[in-house]
Amino acid sequence: MSFKAVAVDIDGTITYSDRSIDCRAVAALRSLNIPVVIATGNVLCVARAVAKLLGTGGILIAENGGVVECGRVESDISHMKECNDALEILEKHFTLERLDPEARITEIGLRRNFDAQEARTLLGDAAVDIVDTGFAIHIKSKKINKGTGLKRIAQMMGIDARDFVAIGDSPNDIEMIKAAGLGVAVGNAHPDLKEAAGLVTKGEHGAGVKEVLGELRKRGEIR
Amino acid sequence: MSFKAVAVDIDGTITYSDRSIDCRAVAALRSLNIPVVIATGNVLCVARAVAKLLGTGGILIAENGGVVECGRVESDISHMKECNDALEILEKHFTLERLDPEARITEIGLRRNFDAQEARTLLGDAAVDIVDTGFAIHIKSKKINKGTGLKRIAQMMGIDARDFVAIGDSPNDIEMIKAAGLGVAVGNAHPDLKEAAGLVTKGEHGAGVKEVLGELRKRGEIR
Repeated sequence: MSFKAVAVDIDGTITYSDRSIDCRAVAALRSLNIPVVIATGNVLCVARAVAKLLGTGGILIAENGGVVECGRVESDISHMKECNDALEILEKHFTLERLDPEARITEIGLRRNFDAQEARTLLGDAAVDIVDTGFAIHIKSKKINKGTGLKRIAQMMGIDARDFVAIGDSPNDIEMIKAAGLGVAVGNAHPDLKEAAGLVTKGEHGAGVKEVLGELRKRGEIR
Repeated sequence: MSFKAVAVDIDGTITYSDRSIDCRAVAALRSLNIPVVIATGNVLCVARAVAKLLGTGGILIAENGGVVECGRVESDISHMKECNDALEILEKHFTLERLDPEARITEIGLRRNFDAQEARTLLGDAAVDIVDTGFAIHIKSKKINKGTGLKRIAQMMGIDARDFVAIGDSPNDIEMIKAAGLGVAVGNAHPDLKEAAGLVTKGEHGAGVKEVLGELRKRGEIR
């Protein structure tokens, strides 16, 4: 098996837990000779800035899969009504602070100043997921996630999602690592992600990214 | 003289010329015990993303001084009419591509696919500057620059622009390094910036940033 591309989460995976960049991941990703796709819950502008700094090119998954970019940008705004309906319900119970309201167009990002589990209970069987990445809480459609984003970006690249190694740390990476040919959880990952992963690194954050890419290269499974 | 803060440009200064991050600068800036202000021609969203990755906190100069952030955001949109008038003239002569038209609110950013000098000649004595940073061409008011941005951010921080060490590589950093107590040009800087600088490093890009910060620390002029 030779992988054709790598998809990698930003916060907690190529950064430390304070969101500052882990340069061990930068060097490891830069040394690859296959495309690196940044896959984040953050907005497109941030994904682009990070890709520029990494020097990895402009293939991107943003807003947890709602926005993808590969030459052109595709944004799936078809589920915003469900997100807004859920927001309206939650606003009756919590004082919420929206993150990037102008830039975020396919889902809603909120500051982590309320209880995500309580929010889920309040919403019951709504059409949305409440996802806590450890950095923000997202109200997002159940139909969109980094896994659907990975499949779409693979299609745009003319390859298959199974051709990817995908690396993450948080529950919002689960669908992505399951869709990939090899799903990797870094050592500091959430237990649910480790459970879903094909491989869990010993190293945390950038050290984990470096570890798995080095291992795959040694095995000749990545260039 | 002990400096109280550092202002640093992004592209070409803490990045290589392909805009990818130079981790030598990351380590040097992170090791400081005084505020680091990111000062960029790029839009606020990018400045914020870079500051997060550097772990330097949220004091920012964006859009070449048009936007500053220190707790709150201040955007000087009062000169957009002059910029738009100039754009209208240039569009008659060149096929222009705007960069970040939604996110850029105090000036106009353009792809570098036309001759900046010819544009200056066309505009004659207009109220705007045509600034080529090597990464983009900006149409900006003559009244706004990274120097006015530095003075404003210093005021918001309760210090003086002279309390800053400012580091850059490009002509759009000239006013900033002149306003600072110590103005530094990295080794790869444009000749005009080196001319204006109080100190030119031997090292290029991140090596230059590391060099000057190390030197100042050795002299006890920075913490």
